Amino acid sequence: MTKKIDYEIFSLGKTVLQNGETLPDAKIAYKTYGKLNDEKNNVIVYPTWYSGFCSDNEWLIAEGMALDPNNYFIIIVCALGNGQSSSPSNTAEPYNQARFPSITLYDNVVLQHRLITEHFGIKKIKLVVGWSMGAQQAYQWGCLYPEMVERIAPFCGSAKTAPHNFVFLEGIKAALTADDAWNNGWYQKNPTKGLRSLARVYAGWGFSQPFYRHELWKELGFSSLEDFLVGFWEKFFLLRDANNLLAMIWTWQNADISDNPLFNGNVIKALNAIKAKVFVMPGETDLYFRVADNEWEIKHMPNAELRIIPSIWGHFAGDGLNPIDTEWIDNNLKELLAST
Amino acid sequence: MTKKIDYEIFSLGKTVLQNGETLPDAKIAYKTYGKLNDEKNNVIVYPTWYSGFCSDNEWLIAEGMALDPNNYFIIIVCALGNGQSSSPSNTAEPYNQARFPSITLYDNVVLQHRLITEHFGIKKIKLVVGWSMGAQQAYQWGCLYPEMVERIAPFCGSAKTAPHNFVFLEGIKAALTADDAWNNGWYQKNPTKGLRSLARVYAGWGFSQPFYRHELWKELGFSSLEDFLVGFWEKFFLLRDANNLLAMIWTWQNADISDNPLFNGNVIKALNAIKAKVFVMPGETDLYFRVADNEWEIKHMPNAELRIIPSIWGHFAGDGLNPIDTEWIDNNLKELLAST
Repeated sequence: MTKKIDYEIFSLGKTVLQNGETLPDAKIAYKTYGKLNDEKNNVIVYPTWYSGFCSDNEWLIAEGMALDPNNYFIIIVCALGNGQSSSPSNTAEPYNQARFPSITLYDNVVLQHRLITEHFGIKKIKLVVGWSMGAQQAYQWGCLYPEMVERIAPFCGSAKTAPHNFVFLEGIKAALTADDAWNNGWYQKNPTKGLRSLARVYAGWGFSQPFYRHELWKELGFSSLEDFLVGFWEKFFLLRDANNLLAMIWTWQNADISDNPLFNGNVIKALNAIKAKVFVMPGETDLYFRVADNEWEIKHMPNAELRIIPSIWGHFAGDGLNPIDTEWIDNNLKELLAST
Repeated sequence: MTKKIDYEIFSLGKTVLQNGETLPDAKIAYKTYGKLNDEKNNVIVYPTWYSGFCSDNEWLIAEGMALDPNNYFIIIVCALGNGQSSSPSNTAEPYNQARFPSITLYDNVVLQHRLITEHFGIKKIKLVVGWSMGAQQAYQWGCLYPEMVERIAPFCGSAKTAPHNFVFLEGIKAALTADDAWNNGWYQKNPTKGLRSLARVYAGWGFSQPFYRHELWKELGFSSLEDFLVGFWEKFFLLRDANNLLAMIWTWQNADISDNPLFNGNVIKALNAIKAKVFVMPGETDLYFRVADNEWEIKHMPNAELRIIPSIWGHFAGDGLNPIDTEWIDNNLKELLAST
C-alpha cells in the first residue's frame, strides 16, 4: 500500500542494541509541532503506543489544549517496530522480517534521547507523555534521564509489564501466529486471517465489560457489535504488518524500566530515580494496565500522584475516542504543566 | 484416544431442536451419585460447564459436603457438545463435524428434563447447581420448570450471555479457526495449533490479574508461567475436539433463558418466573461472568440472594482448584439446601 509520508526520519547509523544485536542503520521516525524556542526549554516528548503511527498521537495536540503548539515544541517519537521507525517491515535484508532484532524499552528511549540531544540540542524536557506502551517509555525517560525530564504523564501504562498483561499478549500472539500464512515470519503477503484473529481477541481486552454492555461502540458510529469488530478492530490491524506487531509484542512483554545496567532489575530503585513530577493516569476499567499496578508504583516515586481516569472505556480511555476522557486527560496535563 | 467410559447414556431418539434441525438419535450423558429415595425427593441436578466432562464436576461431590451422596441423589448431566452427550465428535454422518446442528440453552435443559422425568420419574428437584455454562442451565431450569425446581445455585454464570462475554468468545473462536488445519470443521486430525492458540487466549480470561500477579499457579504445582500455559491450558484443550468447542461456543454466545416460546426474549419475565430460592454466586474477580450482571438479575428474581465469592481466582474460583473457594461455595450450598 502507498501512504503519504507525514513524518521525518532521524538516522542513527550503525546501532548496537541492548541485547548485542546490531541494526546497520537504525531510524527514528518523528514529527514536531510548534517551535523550539531560543532557550530550548519548551519541549514535550510524546512517544507512540503499540502499533500506533505518528499520526495516531495527534488527537491530544491542538490549540487550546495542554499540548498547544503555540506554547510548546512537541515531538512525537515513534517506537521501534511501529512501521515508521526501524521495523521488520522497513529494514533491509538481512535484518528484515523474522530476523529483525529484539528491541527493548531501554533501546527505544536511549535512541529517542539521541534524537532529542544530537539532532535538536535539547537539554531540558518539560514533559514526557504517553499512552500504554508510550506510557512505559515515559517512565523509562524519567528514570534514565532524571536531570533532564521535569515531568512525566504516563497514562494507561506501567513501569514494568505485569504478568497478566504478559499472558494477554501471549494470547494475541498465539491468535496471529496460528495462521499458516504467517510462515514463521517469512510471508510474502501479510497473513490477514491471523491479523483478523488477533484483532478479535484484542477487542475483548481493549474496552471494558460495561463499554460493551452499554453498546458505546454506537458513539463511534458503528451499526452493530459485528460491525465494530470488523470496522474498528479488524480494519485497524489489517493496516499493520504482522512481524511489526510481533516485534512490538516482544518489547511490551519484556518492558521493565529497571532492565538495564543502571538499575539491574531493581524496579523500586528505578522508580525512586524518577525526579520528575509525575501524574500517573490509569483507566479505571483498563483490563491489562491495572490501577493496582500503578498504586504500587506511586509509593516508590518521590513526586508522583495517582489520577484515575473515571471511564468505562477500558484501556481506550486513553486513545482520544471520546470527548469526556480526552478533556479529563487534557485538564490533568494542563495542571501538571502549570505546576512547578 | 481411548478413554474409559465412566458415565451412562440416555437415548432420546429422533429429536427436533429449537431451531428446527433434527438429531436422529440425541443422547444425554449423565452420571449419578447416591440413591434416589422412595419419595424421589432427594434430587440434585448438576449440569456440566463449557467443555467440561462429566468427571470434571466431581470435585463438589463428597461425603460431608453439601452434595453428599449419603443424603442426595445427585445427577451430573452433560451439556450437548461436551463430547459425551451428543456432539460433533460422536454423532454419526451426516450430522457430524461441521454439520452438527446449533444447540440452544433451551435444548439442553428440555432434553435434560426428559432424562429426569421419563427415565427417573422425578417430579421435584431440591437443587440445580452449576458453574459457568452449568450456571446458565440452572437459571434455565428455574424458569422453565418453576413448580419442579425448589432451589438453584448458579455460580460464575449469568441468565443471559453479556455482550462483552460474547466478544471474549469471538476471540477464542478466531484463535482456534485461524489454524488452516481446522479446515472449516472438516479435519481428519484435531487442529492442535488452533487448540493451543485458543488455550493461550483463554489463559488471560480464566484467571484474574491478581492471580497472575501473585503467581498462584504455583499452588497448582506449575514451575513457571510458561509451564502453566502449556501444562494447564494447552493440555486441557488438546483433549477437546475443535468442533465440540465451537458447538459449545455457539450455545454459550447465544445463551438467553428467555429465548424460547415461554418468554419470547423477555429476560425480566423469565427471571421473574423463577420461583426457586436462588443463591447467585459470582466470582469477585471473574473477567467475563461479571458481578454487575448478576446484580441486575437479582432485582428481577422473587427469591434470590447475591453471594459474591471473595476470591482472586477469577472465573476459576468455581472450578474446585483451591480449598478456600471450594469451602466457601460448599458452605453456601449447605445453607441453601438447609433453607426452606
